[in-house]
Amino acid sequence: MIIEIKVNTDKQILEQIASELQGILIHKPEGDIIITGSKTKKLPEKFNEFAEKIYVFENDMQLSSRQYRSKREIRFGELVIGGIHKNTLLMAGPCAVENHEMIDKTALLLKELNIKVLRAGAYKPRTSPYSFQGLGLDGLKLLDKMRKIYDLKIISEVRDSTHADEVIAYSDIVQIGAKSMYDHGILRKCGKTRKPVLLKRGFGTTLQEFVQAAEFILSEGNDNVILCERGIRTFENKTRFTLDLCCAAYLKQYTNLPIVLDPSHAIGYAYGVHDLARACVAMGVDGLLIEVHPDPSQAKSDASQQINHEEFKRVFESIKAVANAIGYKII
Amino acid sequence: MIIEIKVNTDKQILEQIASELQGILIHKPEGDIIITGSKTKKLPEKFNEFAEKIYVFENDMQLSSRQYRSKREIRFGELVIGGIHKNTLLMAGPCAVENHEMIDKTALLLKELNIKVLRAGAYKPRTSPYSFQGLGLDGLKLLDKMRKIYDLKIISEVRDSTHADEVIAYSDIVQIGAKSMYDHGILRKCGKTRKPVLLKRGFGTTLQEFVQAAEFILSEGNDNVILCERGIRTFENKTRFTLDLCCAAYLKQYTNLPIVLDPSHAIGYAYGVHDLARACVAMGVDGLLIEVHPDPSQAKSDASQQINHEEFKRVFESIKAVANAIGYKII
Amino acid sequence: MIIEIKVNTDKQILEQIASELQGILIHKPEGDIIITGSKTKKLPEKFNEFAEKIYVFENDMQLSSRQYRSKREIRFGELVIGGIHKNTLLMAGPCAVENHEMIDKTALLLKELNIKVLRAGAYKPRTSPYSFQGLGLDGLKLLDKMRKIYDLKIISEVRDSTHADEVIAYSDIVQIGAKSMYDHGILRKCGKTRKPVLLKRGFGTTLQEFVQAAEFILSEGNDNVILCERGIRTFENKTRFTLDLCCAAYLKQYTNLPIVLDPSHAIGYAYGVHDLARACVAMGVDGLLIEVHPDPSQAKSDASQQINHEEFKRVFESIKAVANAIGYKII
Amino acid sequence: MIIEIKVNTDKQILEQIASELQGILIHKPEGDIIITGSKTKKLPEKFNEFAEKIYVFENDMQLSSRQYRSKREIRFGELVIGGIHKNTLLMAGPCAVENHEMIDKTALLLKELNIKVLRAGAYKPRTSPYSFQGLGLDGLKLLDKMRKIYDLKIISEVRDSTHADEVIAYSDIVQIGAKSMYDHGILRKCGKTRKPVLLKRGFGTTLQEFVQAAEFILSEGNDNVILCERGIRTFENKTRFTLDLCCAAYLKQYTNLPIVLDPSHAIGYAYGVHDLARACVAMGVDGLLIEVHPDPSQAKSDASQQINHEEFKRVFESIKAVANAIGYKII
Repeated sequence: MIIEIKVNTDKQILEQIASELQGILIHKPEGDIIITGSKTKKLPEKFNEFAEKIYVFENDMQLSSRQYRSKREIRFGELVIGGIHKNTLLMAGPCAVENHEMIDKTALLLKELNIKVLRAGAYKPRTSPYSFQGLGLDGLKLLDKMRKIYDLKIISEVRDSTHADEVIAYSDIVQIGAKSMYDHGILRKCGKTRKPVLLKRGFGTTLQEFVQAAEFILSEGNDNVILCERGIRTFENKTRFTLDLCCAAYLKQYTNLPIVLDPSHAIGYAYGVHDLARACVAMGVDGLLIEVHPDPSQAKSDASQQINHEEFKRVFESIKAVANAIGYKII
Repeated sequence: MIIEIKVNTDKQILEQIASELQGILIHKPEGDIIITGSKTKKLPEKFNEFAEKIYVFENDMQLSSRQYRSKREIRFGELVIGGIHKNTLLMAGPCAVENHEMIDKTALLLKELNIKVLRAGAYKPRTSPYSFQGLGLDGLKLLDKMRKIYDLKIISEVRDSTHADEVIAYSDIVQIGAKSMYDHGILRKCGKTRKPVLLKRGFGTTLQEFVQAAEFILSEGNDNVILCERGIRTFENKTRFTLDLCCAAYLKQYTNLPIVLDPSHAIGYAYGVHDLARACVAMGVDGLLIEVHPDPSQAKSDASQQINHEEFKRVFESIKAVANAIGYKII
Repeated sequence: MIIEIKVNTDKQILEQIASELQGILIHKPEGDIIITGSKTKKLPEKFNEFAEKIYVFENDMQLSSRQYRSKREIRFGELVIGGIHKNTLLMAGPCAVENHEMIDKTALLLKELNIKVLRAGAYKPRTSPYSFQGLGLDGLKLLDKMRKIYDLKIISEVRDSTHADEVIAYSDIVQIGAKSMYDHGILRKCGKTRKPVLLKRGFGTTLQEFVQAAEFILSEGNDNVILCERGIRTFENKTRFTLDLCCAAYLKQYTNLPIVLDPSHAIGYAYGVHDLARACVAMGVDGLLIEVHPDPSQAKSDASQQINHEEFKRVFESIKAVANAIGYKII
Repeated sequence: MIIEIKVNTDKQILEQIASELQGILIHKPEGDIIITGSKTKKLPEKFNEFAEKIYVFENDMQLSSRQYRSKREIRFGELVIGGIHKNTLLMAGPCAVENHEMIDKTALLLKELNIKVLRAGAYKPRTSPYSFQGLGLDGLKLLDKMRKIYDLKIISEVRDSTHADEVIAYSDIVQIGAKSMYDHGILRKCGKTRKPVLLKRGFGTTLQEFVQAAEFILSEGNDNVILCERGIRTFENKTRFTLDLCCAAYLKQYTNLPIVLDPSHAIGYAYGVHDLARACVAMGVDGLLIEVHPDPSQAKSDASQQINHEEFKRVFESIKAVANAIGYKII
């Protein structure tokens, strides 16, 4: 249940309501709200006079629900997605920042194409301790350099809560990866910042759990949460994962959060990225993540799924046409 | 292994090769071929003189493989898909033919929009014995009437081999459903006809098994096999199934068979059909199946996923624009 | 809804009730019953006088439900499972009957160990057209010979409805395989016989669908249905399938049908059969299927999962001890 | 590749080998070892003289592999599991420590039955921010009290790396939960301690990834890793998860780590715990986790799957009999 509290309600009363309902109190510029678990379906009568409006929910998708509010708009700098805007934000770059040369080449490519957001991992959540683990803080510093030289925005991933503060400090959009999305430590830290947070769905995560992870961030007071579908794990293993576009349709219908799709991680093979990127854009979503590397065969991680610069340019032209056909714009 | 036999090779020799290699012999207008299991990697030397060309494969995707031949073209009447054609064939209609009135309304809608193929089930593979099982032969006869009145082509589903002959007789395209696609009885009967067969992937079926089911039909001599992805079963149950577009990308890359997508069965809910249909077309595929019903709320099966005529017209306009953006044409 | 009709109710009335409720009428020695879909929750008042007892259900698990009756007992010859009996019926044999010698060796092994039921496939539902498809009718005849020589009961699988009658004629227990369990043609034919039918769960089949497939058989009047869990398809592919013992627990709790488990097909590798067979027996179930072959490395199908005779004897001793520990008996 | 280095090899040489091969150097009482990624298949010739023994692997399951060493033994206090011991360690307790009274009742039950390990969560990895999140440090202190009063060992879960040190300090066995098992922060911290670590498989985690997560801990120098299967997420949702005993068979066959099973989390419903617990023990494994609560209906989390004290006593008797039948002992 979400209770919008009347302005000028006494602080003490506020805290009494929150405590009695075991609810979470959030102070917003537009007024205070209290959120309880969705099992609470009724406000005790004595508090009725303090409630401006009450929203009752079937389950714990509350702050993220379309029932609570219309599509959220997220702005960072001159860029805006969500709301009534039909913008699809393209975020591109290598799986990992590996060294100055390769990230510089990639940043230059984006600059040329007037793409605004550079993605690259510094802390890589590898499943084996014996493979490349990312450059860590040095990687973040390289990304910072690219931001300054090429006037790009940076999206990079938090792997675990030990370095969450660093990644939040160095990124314009903070990415929570598929393997970390249940991590309360990360979720709560991302709830304290006001930077946009791109939350990836775990590959074994139900939509219910996915949206509830967003609720952790929202209920800490950060309104700027973006949901990203990147492929789920199914019985099929000829492709690395299965891109779940039914999920995207569901999230568009029932949540108020912007939606981003990641075809590269879904299929895991470069050959399918072009077609899938077009399909993703045709869904009418708020963003797209594509992995591109100056020389994929030499990449230190995800070598099979990154496309090269030439292919990327073809994809870019192609998705602009598809976006145009459905009344959207690639930004 | 596929062995293309030299023309004028003696019949007896042919049969000797086939028998010695435990292979399947197919007579084609363009020449005879023998197919063995893929574990056979070498032709015994003594037979070399009779072989025009030999194809060795990694697994039992053989006749369907891009390694064997380029994209197949399938013609039925004036329609053509596959090959070098960038045509996306739209097949639409209700889940089931329920009575004359509703199928007539649907056929009329297609006629108005110049859509050529009417889909509707007569034998419904319901999972409960206590729900509507389809009209059976009477349903096929109603479809036949629509064909004649509106000059439409008919696609309808075989549920099990007891009525396979009937469905083959009454359809222009024979559909093998997701629940029947391992059925040797059906597969072999569909291999004997020359009508196009649309083979749906089982919701628990790997791509390997799916394509091998097509090999049953192809190895009986029917070249006209179309593969259809219609959603797989995953852990996610907020949507009915999960549309596997990574599968479509894989099949485009590695097989020579035309590919059709079915967004309606995948999501199972009308709200997502529009966006998903656009995504399917953006993949660059050979066909699309969409369920449409004059009054979905009254449908006797799959009520939740069928769209009404108004929504269908919107979808139709929208997918034409997307097809156009990628150089395809909806036929 | 199941309506037990009062004895001596007029035939015409019976048919009127069935027709008005679109229900299925079954004549039983203990009285007539009418079954409708589970959405029907109330008998029209005018029919109340003819109803002995009414059972209302949440979903289409009706005749199979514990709510309708207690655990069913199935007898064939001197053997009995289910009901209040704590018997675990061991059914063993090769994947396929390949020739006289190997099936004779297997039958002899069973005889030695006093095991009563020989399993072997004659029509193999292979996923590739290029591998061994089974001996067909000749295989059934070999099994028949074994039955006569060694006084064994035979369980063999129907692959599709084209040969269902044959398999029903030659088997003591008719097996419906995982790939055929949605096949209405087979299900309805198995509903007409009174022989026990062992219905295997499809590897992509929900428990709801599985039990509803049993309802097809039960609602045709055959009471002797046995459910068999044999592994489902999951994202894990280091083993061939995933044995779902939670499923067995669910079926024991909610259905009245005997339950059999098949560890061999589940794991797909001989190394795990011993431990899994013990686990299956420890669940307290009505039967166990184990694949055994005189020389697994030479088997024409499922070579990796069949155990040899020595290993089988060890497993047999081991499961007898486990059964004993939980108050069951291997028969 | 694992290289066992000859004793008395110069420190500088050691570091040179490690650095040149990008390997991890571990100092063990029995000698130093260097581990590289499994793609390295050959030691450069110049280093041959320093290698005592070399192990080459197919994939990154290395330190955990049976190819490297036989079953590991883990001791904590007087308890020992793994190795040649056929002990199945029973760990029982509530989902979460909720207050003094309920944890005291549970501890007393264990004491009565002479069970040595109390399980209970203090930091609960809930998927919703609006439900009970655990008592945190206060919970750990309550568990510490139980340890002292009843002479029990404690197993409790790390939720994220922000409180990993606390949980490690307060536990005798540190549990890494299914949702945290990819967390490098936690894995590395658990690699620094020498306490036994029970690593739970994520519900969407392949066996390969699962064992590689153990490699993170092992390669930091902690030899005491226990693997726990607790159910994976599949398409079936009548039960909460699907207990994967094929996984247990695989891990027994191919890894050297002790294996624990958790039937309570797998099925998610109390009715199946008894049968499944017997099945788990019949597998011949090193441990069992069972959730028990003085009053399950009042539990603040996982209410449906916890069994009460009476049922627990029945399960306990039953699993002792099964263990006995297969030559194991419940400790």
